[in-house]
Amino acid sequence: MNLTPRTPDEIRAIRDRHLGRNLSLAYTEPLKIVRGEGQYLFAEDGRRYLDLVNNVCHVGHCHPRVVEAGRKQMEALNTNSRYLHDNLAEYVTRLAGTMPDPLSVCFLVCTGSEANELALRLARAHTGRREIVVLDHAYHGHTTSLIEISPYKCESKGGEGLAPHARKVPCPDPYRGRHRGDDAGSRYASEVAHAVAEQRPGAFMAETLVGCGGQIVPPSGFFTGSYEVARAAGAVCIADEVQVGFGRVGSHLWAFEAHGVVPDIVTLGKPIGNGHPLAAVVTTPEIADAFDTGMEYFNTFGGNPVSCAIGLAVLDVIEEEGLQAHAAAMGARLMNGMRSLAERHEAIGDVRGQGLFIGAELVSDRAARTPDAATADHVIDAMKDRGFLLSTDGPDHNVLKIKPPLVLDDGDVDGTVAALDEVLGQLEKGR
Amino acid sequence: MNLTPRTPDEIRAIRDRHLGRNLSLAYTEPLKIVRGEGQYLFAEDGRRYLDLVNNVCHVGHCHPRVVEAGRKQMEALNTNSRYLHDNLAEYVTRLAGTMPDPLSVCFLVCTGSEANELALRLARAHTGRREIVVLDHAYHGHTTSLIEISPYKCESKGGEGLAPHARKVPCPDPYRGRHRGDDAGSRYASEVAHAVAEQRPGAFMAETLVGCGGQIVPPSGFFTGSYEVARAAGAVCIADEVQVGFGRVGSHLWAFEAHGVVPDIVTLGKPIGNGHPLAAVVTTPEIADAFDTGMEYFNTFGGNPVSCAIGLAVLDVIEEEGLQAHAAAMGARLMNGMRSLAERHEAIGDVRGQGLFIGAELVSDRAARTPDAATADHVIDAMKDRGFLLSTDGPDHNVLKIKPPLVLDDGDVDGTVAALDEVLGQLEKGR
Repeated sequence: MNLTPRTPDEIRAIRDRHLGRNLSLAYTEPLKIVRGEGQYLFAEDGRRYLDLVNNVCHVGHCHPRVVEAGRKQMEALNTNSRYLHDNLAEYVTRLAGTMPDPLSVCFLVCTGSEANELALRLARAHTGRREIVVLDHAYHGHTTSLIEISPYKCESKGGEGLAPHARKVPCPDPYRGRHRGDDAGSRYASEVAHAVAEQRPGAFMAETLVGCGGQIVPPSGFFTGSYEVARAAGAVCIADEVQVGFGRVGSHLWAFEAHGVVPDIVTLGKPIGNGHPLAAVVTTPEIADAFDTGMEYFNTFGGNPVSCAIGLAVLDVIEEEGLQAHAAAMGARLMNGMRSLAERHEAIGDVRGQGLFIGAELVSDRAARTPDAATADHVIDAMKDRGFLLSTDGPDHNVLKIKPPLVLDDGDVDGTVAALDEVLGQLEKGR
Repeated sequence: MNLTPRTPDEIRAIRDRHLGRNLSLAYTEPLKIVRGEGQYLFAEDGRRYLDLVNNVCHVGHCHPRVVEAGRKQMEALNTNSRYLHDNLAEYVTRLAGTMPDPLSVCFLVCTGSEANELALRLARAHTGRREIVVLDHAYHGHTTSLIEISPYKCESKGGEGLAPHARKVPCPDPYRGRHRGDDAGSRYASEVAHAVAEQRPGAFMAETLVGCGGQIVPPSGFFTGSYEVARAAGAVCIADEVQVGFGRVGSHLWAFEAHGVVPDIVTLGKPIGNGHPLAAVVTTPEIADAFDTGMEYFNTFGGNPVSCAIGLAVLDVIEEEGLQAHAAAMGARLMNGMRSLAERHEAIGDVRGQGLFIGAELVSDRAARTPDAATADHVIDAMKDRGFLLSTDGPDHNVLKIKPPLVLDDGDVDGTVAALDEVLGQLEKGR
């Protein structure tokens, strides 16, 4: 099948006609991307872009090893998990092997939303309670049960507010949030303690690093303290690692390890299949047994041999190419570079991150920490013109979001810093 | 990656340890399938099985055209739908083109459950009502919102009963259900009218042919009547074509066409990507606009260029290989064969179907229509021993379920009938 290429305008007209309008395009002048390789995307006009924002194509766009694993298995067999297959056995063994005890039972699904949906069902089966404590600005997925506990969605445009069984605690944001300074972690954990005491939840659920909330790294002590109070009240702790798992944080394979906790339920998605629709839940035997109520959990595509082959290839590549350590090194280099920019550019209010999960707050007044979404938008567009793909996030839309494929190199990092320097410099001149 | 093969026992031990136990295997002695080709699956010992039950690998296991489309696009680019891409534009154009007016707006997702979840959200956004009427024994997916409206799940082991906002009507089963005979369709539709009058639902949702409910073909007049009364009360009509779409019914591409109705929302899954995790919702511009509340609907993997390439290849193969007409011919041949068996074997109480969606009721007393699950189980095992993969379904677990890849041929059909003849004959002798 070779399609006759359509012009960007033709494609936009088709999208307007045949796609739901609440699926927006990136950029006012959207890009027609036709090829990906490693950390780069290529537009139809041949222009190369450094992809700083795709946290799905984790080991690099179109990694040959992953593509080959997919091709080979697609040629041999693609069927469901009701037959015995080596790929499934190997994959759950490998995946469980990356997790600390007692996390050892896997459920293979197709999307992060399916994983988080299932996590809620597991927690509820185990505790008998539907009540849940979540972080403000959290996003956990697009099903009804997930939207109604995701403040990022249900408290924004078109939302119907938080479900009665959900309660939010302040996002543990040490830069802009209500608690700052050295004891911010324990003070945010006290907020969880308060919510837990009032609501007796069955689950405390949080992304280990907060994505849509603005690329937040919760302060030290937050997760240890929160998990402790949640468990003391009989709740299970769900770590949503859909965005942040698989070595992105550099120091560890899983972000929760970097925060010194062992969750009861972990959800995985996005990078797990380098773009192939794959996701997973890993939990304890105790919780898995509580879920075994006599009702089958069968997922048509989940755990098929092709998905498992691809998942295995991703694990192999992370390991063999040392991508976790590389994420640590590149993340440090990029954050150092951006912090040095902050010395010259008042617009950068904060640079934070772990490994290659990085956020930079743009502000109009550094002392007041006034969010500056307009500048963030300008920077995104100007960086695009220079060949760098970024986006913004956070409740004030002023946080530059950086979460590239892990394979970017020194030159990419230095080029990014230099381009940002130029863009911010020109902005300052223009004022 | 070449895995060292594990023995079936080793794989089962790993599944016991690292997979949730509510994922069961097919057969008491499960098969280790290692290869698929066309309508056949091959076990590790080289044995060939005719796959009569996999309604996912629709155009044949590992169809070279589909594999090649996947490989080629995986090598080029696999990213999200926030950039412009020809595959997405072409796919939604093609998909919308297969639907009658005014069904023209697509949402691309990854699984049937995601599709049905979204269908509920669309219906609710459009009507402002969460109330829903469903068929008894229906199964629509494994998320919380879908389980609680799926009697097959929520009213069985481990279930918590139907949600208060859901109401079920009798499954329109003309063989075993409460209404039989020539006017069964309109009498079942009257049940819908009654439910609708009492509950004022926002949606009436039904599989066009009922799968888990026992391979039921609703009688003529059921859908026209039900859609009419549902719409008169302001509800939208959701056709779940996850199992039955893409030409399986033979006479039409979509089963709803064969039943003379045009739904407001159609959900597609299983066969759509021949095993690749792809699914879709197609609806009217009016409903899609009502859903455009300001809340983004973004699906990380949905509509990626690889999924679209695979979806396009599946449509091409169905068309170019004439698989819809072939399903009609093979389905007729198989049903004729099985009906002739019914003349000789009292155990076959009913043979029904459309195209290659076929069910056969096994009964211990034909006049009383007494379901015979034990015989059905025996037949499944004995057919497996002869190289034919079948399964059972229906509330009484006595319905032989036949929904093969569309590519099976005359010889396969005749072989199936001959093997069934033999198995039933031996059973009778044994009595």
